Amino acid sequence: MEPEGAPHFESLYSTTQWRLDMTARTTAFSAQPPRRPSLPGRRISRRLSTLSSAEHEQNGAPTGSTEQEFTEEIEKIKRYEDFTTIDWVQDAAREQLRRRARRKENAGFFERDGQLGWRRNLRDSYDAGQAWIVVTLVGAAIGLNAAFLNIVTEWLSDVKLGYCTTAFYLNEDFCCWGEDTCDDWHRWTSLWPVNYFLYFVFSIIFALTSASLVKAYAPYAAGSGISEIKCIIAGFVMKGFLGFWTLLIKSICLPLAIASGLSVGKEGPSVHYAVCTGNVISRFFDKYKRNAAKTREILSACAAAGVAVAFGSPIGGVLFSLEEMSSYFPLKTMWRSYFCALVATAVLAAMNPFRTGQLVMFEVRYDRSWHFFEVIFFIFIGVFGGLYGAFVMKWNLRAMAFRKKYLSKYAVLEATLLAAGTALLCYPNMFLRIDMTEAMEKLFLECEGGHDYDGLCDTKNRWSMVLSLLFATVMRTFLVIISYGCKVPAGIFVPSMAIGASFGRMVGILVQTLHESFPRAKFFATCEPDVPCITPGTYAFLGAAAALSGIMHITVSVVVIMFELTGALTYILPTMIVVGVTKAVSERFGKGGIADRMIWFNGFPFLDNKEEHTFGVPVSSVMTSEVTSLPSAGLNLRSLETIMSQNKYQGFPIIEDRATKALIGYIGRTELRYAIDRAKKEGFISPDANCFFTQPDSTALQTPSTAAPPVTFDAIESISGQQSLDFSRFIDPTPLAVHPRLPLETVMELFKKMGPRVILVDYRGRLAGLVTVKDCLKFQFKVEAHETTRDDSTLDERQEKLWDVISRAADWVADKVMNVSGGRVRLGASARSPGLQQSETMDPRDRLEPIRASRHAILDGTEDEDTGVELQDR
Amino acid sequence: MEPEGAPHFESLYSTTQWRLDMTARTTAFSAQPPRRPSLPGRRISRRLSTLSSAEHEQNGAPTGSTEQEFTEEIEKIKRYEDFTTIDWVQDAAREQLRRRARRKENAGFFERDGQLGWRRNLRDSYDAGQAWIVVTLVGAAIGLNAAFLNIVTEWLSDVKLGYCTTAFYLNEDFCCWGEDTCDDWHRWTSLWPVNYFLYFVFSIIFALTSASLVKAYAPYAAGSGISEIKCIIAGFVMKGFLGFWTLLIKSICLPLAIASGLSVGKEGPSVHYAVCTGNVISRFFDKYKRNAAKTREILSACAAAGVAVAFGSPIGGVLFSLEEMSSYFPLKTMWRSYFCALVATAVLAAMNPFRTGQLVMFEVRYDRSWHFFEVIFFIFIGVFGGLYGAFVMKWNLRAMAFRKKYLSKYAVLEATLLAAGTALLCYPNMFLRIDMTEAMEKLFLECEGGHDYDGLCDTKNRWSMVLSLLFATVMRTFLVIISYGCKVPAGIFVPSMAIGASFGRMVGILVQTLHESFPRAKFFATCEPDVPCITPGTYAFLGAAAALSGIMHITVSVVVIMFELTGALTYILPTMIVVGVTKAVSERFGKGGIADRMIWFNGFPFLDNKEEHTFGVPVSSVMTSEVTSLPSAGLNLRSLETIMSQNKYQGFPIIEDRATKALIGYIGRTELRYAIDRAKKEGFISPDANCFFTQPDSTALQTPSTAAPPVTFDAIESISGQQSLDFSRFIDPTPLAVHPRLPLETVMELFKKMGPRVILVDYRGRLAGLVTVKDCLKFQFKVEAHETTRDDSTLDERQEKLWDVISRAADWVADKVMNVSGGRVRLGASARSPGLQQSETMDPRDRLEPIRASRHAILDGTEDEDTGVELQDR
Repeated sequence: MEPEGAPHFESLYSTTQWRLDMTARTTAFSAQPPRRPSLPGRRISRRLSTLSSAEHEQNGAPTGSTEQEFTEEIEKIKRYEDFTTIDWVQDAAREQLRRRARRKENAGFFERDGQLGWRRNLRDSYDAGQAWIVVTLVGAAIGLNAAFLNIVTEWLSDVKLGYCTTAFYLNEDFCCWGEDTCDDWHRWTSLWPVNYFLYFVFSIIFALTSASLVKAYAPYAAGSGISEIKCIIAGFVMKGFLGFWTLLIKSICLPLAIASGLSVGKEGPSVHYAVCTGNVISRFFDKYKRNAAKTREILSACAAAGVAVAFGSPIGGVLFSLEEMSSYFPLKTMWRSYFCALVATAVLAAMNPFRTGQLVMFEVRYDRSWHFFEVIFFIFIGVFGGLYGAFVMKWNLRAMAFRKKYLSKYAVLEATLLAAGTALLCYPNMFLRIDMTEAMEKLFLECEGGHDYDGLCDTKNRWSMVLSLLFATVMRTFLVIISYGCKVPAGIFVPSMAIGASFGRMVGILVQTLHESFPRAKFFATCEPDVPCITPGTYAFLGAAAALSGIMHITVSVVVIMFELTGALTYILPTMIVVGVTKAVSERFGKGGIADRMIWFNGFPFLDNKEEHTFGVPVSSVMTSEVTSLPSAGLNLRSLETIMSQNKYQGFPIIEDRATKALIGYIGRTELRYAIDRAKKEGFISPDANCFFTQPDSTALQTPSTAAPPVTFDAIESISGQQSLDFSRFIDPTPLAVHPRLPLETVMELFKKMGPRVILVDYRGRLAGLVTVKDCLKFQFKVEAHETTRDDSTLDERQEKLWDVISRAADWVADKVMNVSGGRVRLGASARSPGLQQSETMDPRDRLEPIRASRHAILDGTEDEDTGVELQDR
Repeated sequence: MEPEGAPHFESLYSTTQWRLDMTARTTAFSAQPPRRPSLPGRRISRRLSTLSSAEHEQNGAPTGSTEQEFTEEIEKIKRYEDFTTIDWVQDAAREQLRRRARRKENAGFFERDGQLGWRRNLRDSYDAGQAWIVVTLVGAAIGLNAAFLNIVTEWLSDVKLGYCTTAFYLNEDFCCWGEDTCDDWHRWTSLWPVNYFLYFVFSIIFALTSASLVKAYAPYAAGSGISEIKCIIAGFVMKGFLGFWTLLIKSICLPLAIASGLSVGKEGPSVHYAVCTGNVISRFFDKYKRNAAKTREILSACAAAGVAVAFGSPIGGVLFSLEEMSSYFPLKTMWRSYFCALVATAVLAAMNPFRTGQLVMFEVRYDRSWHFFEVIFFIFIGVFGGLYGAFVMKWNLRAMAFRKKYLSKYAVLEATLLAAGTALLCYPNMFLRIDMTEAMEKLFLECEGGHDYDGLCDTKNRWSMVLSLLFATVMRTFLVIISYGCKVPAGIFVPSMAIGASFGRMVGILVQTLHESFPRAKFFATCEPDVPCITPGTYAFLGAAAALSGIMHITVSVVVIMFELTGALTYILPTMIVVGVTKAVSERFGKGGIADRMIWFNGFPFLDNKEEHTFGVPVSSVMTSEVTSLPSAGLNLRSLETIMSQNKYQGFPIIEDRATKALIGYIGRTELRYAIDRAKKEGFISPDANCFFTQPDSTALQTPSTAAPPVTFDAIESISGQQSLDFSRFIDPTPLAVHPRLPLETVMELFKKMGPRVILVDYRGRLAGLVTVKDCLKFQFKVEAHETTRDDSTLDERQEKLWDVISRAADWVADKVMNVSGGRVRLGASARSPGLQQSETMDPRDRLEPIRASRHAILDGTEDEDTGVELQDR
């Protein structure tokens, strides 16, 4: 378990390079003889007498042990398959084969009633219950991790201000537990400028540490990770993204990033570390090691648990996983998610990290209900949420493009400077100064019952409050735009909610003022006289919901999360109205939430099932018609290996012969490679050996048959010596095949719902082409580009100018520092460093290309199909 | 709009007869010349010059008006399709065609910029927004209806006890609004036996009215309707089930049934009337009139709104629709459901039927949190929930079988007697006497804060309370078993919750007693001393959740519903634990919740996506290999019509010729029928006219083409006179076709996820067979029957004996009544009536057959494929 990807850190910032790098790795892998994991104690017994295909078909039911042997052999191949993207159809078929084998075995057991019976029985129940065991373990681990993170984050945040004299590792709350006035907790000094300076320094140190650790050990731990996890759950393989190192670094750096005061939240990263936990733990279990599609179920459940522990909202987590994370969410996965979220939340509750006995960060109870006339203001807040989401997404994407283009080398510096800037800018504002969660809690509160925070409820300084809240809203929005995406673990949930809350509270105060100015207006008729009518806290609450919904484009989960967060039952209808309006406004700006935009920005091969397309073309206009296919007979080993080395296709259709092109089946590259390697290991195989992909007698296949003909290599040897190779055992005789005229939309539905890696196109039994998800996406992108052609050059020029300003400023600072220090301190991060000089001398047009290309890297047609990012182990 | 199905009331109770009847109707329809809805003002303009197929393909983009013509023509056919089951794939394809046509039109508009521009623009936005308009209207209608039902139900329940002197139409609460002592509300008399008698009489009258109305006008209004709606949403067509009469009768009879005191709830029927509302309203909109698959989206949304208004739980409703009702629930449907539930709930809240300003029936706030040691009792309650569900389902199914066999003729009498029996049995018990919702509210309450109900919190009579609650649990369970399924609108949600609540409260009181007996036990260490530690009300709350989850086998929705019902935020984790345990226990008894069991019992063609099967056979062993297919040329009209009249298949594969069997396409029976009728109307067609299903030149189809060749009938006439018929325009050239060796499981996945009506099986381009959902279900049933062979004869004998006892008792009563009345009153319902005599003289074995057959009617192989229940209009 090495810190994977560490040497590739730089390239991560440029998707193009990173992609190229990955492709190179893949190619390298393909050329090398593949590493096969050794199987101690699991050597497959070689049987000299195997069932012939005919026998097998007539019997209909092979014996248990033969089936098992096949299953194990297939598992061996399966492990190879980890290196490619997932084929859900094949994975499901394999799982069925395995289950059938097990059932056969069971039947045998009942007949025999032998001594080994109970053991087998036990193993069976273990196999059946594995999923639940895994989910329980994972849930518990996530709960523990969340509790640890909560405690560390609180301590780090407090350490910036002071220390506990009794025990340095206690935070302020725990240090002063149960005491009214706290003597044990000391500020660092008694001078506020020194305190403030220390606070500033701590912020910078935290950000620096966090960014450096991420850069050094797990570049994948940066950002929120939600968009990547969406793709992974949909079947994309990104090795290391869910590895142990990512988990460790994300868990360590997340508290640091939060404590540094950056405008980032912990919810997105929570999902990421939760999913990592699930991936790492499930690897220890056979069922999941073998089956990548099954693992995705666990990952969906983990995503639910991640949100559950982040918000203390188990049901909200399940719904988030359903609405945002998972492209395919059957009821079984829903129950797994439910259970996983339950265990995680229960463990978190048992750990009680806040020592309040509460699961939620804050609980609000509103005594007053709402009035129907308020709906108009709720709608206003909803509209704000939609606009906020669209605005932040637009500018954050631009910031991302800028970052990718100019800042990829200065990741650590960038995070540090951002933390410093945030600390400087936020200090003057009372709502920005404190932690975002804390700020929300204060903003949500009613004014009645003695709650007050620095005169927030005071009617006298209402206008200054409004201005202060407005400033907080604008400033935080700006900070979120530039901070989200910087190379530390960073989520966008809580910052968005904090922005929404400050805006909402502002609206609430204004409405309250309005009511108090015109208490007898007809509009306010339903208000009872002489009693407060408007509760500004509820507006803050609704604003938070609106902003969250606006940025993520989720609805039901937001309502449930807000609800579980605060328990404001009476406000469920207003929340729903606000979120509904936000949803409607967001739809106007299209293209999904920020996670979907990031997927598009990064060019991941992801078919969004939220989008509906009307292309009006048949699949034949999208498919690859020049398919490299293998004839079922007549190919010798040498030419087969030549074909395989000439391209990187993940598999080849098998046709009867080149003339008729009659489709017979499909063979995956991994299976083919494995079969060749294994045959070579078994003995000397001449390069002229004939390769067969079908049984000689299998052409008369009108009669039903059960499965692929079960010929093992022993049989091959005995029958044909060294001069022929039979691959029929390794082909998929029933690949999904469609008619060339089938509408593209239906084919995309098939990809989304059935999840094959490739769909063959046959016309009257003859191979006509082949289509992959990437082909579909390529076409979709072309259509979209055609529909929205726009000139980006103004934007690019502006980015250019901005970079110019930044680099000049950096130069000036570097010069000053050098002058002041007498040349002893040279800021290496100067923008005028040689590497950058070089890039600046390039023609702006040229420099633009990589970004353009990288943004649609997956779609540019230069790649072979479905290579994607191939990685070593999960 | 006639009261459809009314004359078939009797047969409804015997599924066999009903099915036969429907089949007969369908057959009759097929034989008759089909009624075609007239299209005033929409006559399709006949164009003499049509684009030839070749032209079309070369141009690639036909003009807007041609496209539109096709679309309209297709719509015409589509209306025919209402009579059959849904083909989701074709429906989606048609919708895409329509959308493409619209887009083309738009493009034309922008070019032309003509005067009609803004109108077309308006029409476009109307078309796009139709879904939201429909959902809003439907939601509002559901909310209004729910408010009306709530008010009527309350009034009817109170009328049993007394009347309001100021206005007879006010219920007790409204009559006494705002008064402490109520003088306006009077009991009927001052004598309690008379009052009790009146109560009893009112109960009987309500039940009698309800059952009679159902029997006379809308037999489909009986029962809960959830299982049927599940099938309808999955694509099954059951005409009249969602019609206007069902809606009206269900809305009228539901309050009567509830007020009669029967152990039935209003939640299931709420879903039914909500879905009816959606169906009735959406019929007025073009988009939904045409497209049955689109309508299903609205129906899913309505189901959500139904639960939302029943429980005052909008999010719970959405989740219920997701978890229980809809086999396919994409995010778009989720947002529709969300919006529909929101509108319905908002309207209900605005109507404020309870005049409490609250959406929920009762709100509970628990001051105390729970302790970890209580988890053991929560698990116990969870186990109870699972066992309760399994027990009730088992016995309720037996009661259903008994009802179907013996009581189908006495539906009204049965409901009346049940109401009478319920009134008699329930009166003595304080928890059974009051309304179930009210009982739950009382059971959920904390004892603190002055809440008490007849000494429920009194520590002195604790043991009598426990006994009373135990009696209530057992008696209500018994009543639910015999009442659910009787022929009045009846749900099982609230009765189950009431049972769970009484059991839970009992456990709670016992735990409280235990704690008070051993306050210093280590087990109770976390309890604070001298303060109440156990809250029995929370146990009742959890019991209700467990029972609801146990009977319906739903998890997430139960948690959210309970949560929205009561707002008990602190108890979300216990609720989740309880429901999780219930789920685990329920799974042991398998086969899904009561709705799924009913589907199985009634033999509806429904592929349950909760079940996973491992058959281990290829599709070829399930498919029909003897397929009636049509050769693409060489068939004359006479033989075509003979083929069509000889069978009732819903469609025919098209093959090149009988020898090669090369698969060319598929044509639906309705399309074929329509094409023939239309051709006949256009002019004289000789019975010897040749029928073509392909264009002569369309065999060379390697090149991409856009759509079916656009030849209208005018073209046919001009080209070939009266001597040939070209159907190529009506065939589906790209039916889903799979390899014969494909595993059955994958084919079932295709059915579930893609939703075609039929999947063809081709081997190397040649038609090998055809498979439908019913074939899959037939096979599944066979496998299941093989796995669980059991002898039902003991059960049948017992049912026989029970019926004997009942009929004897009925005879005795009838005799007595006749004697007492001196022969003037003859109870026609006597079991010894001639009709019954006849049935009793039958051999018991024979009588058993219909039930056996009916239970698996869909699977017995005697039917043609996919006939289902074909009905006239939605």
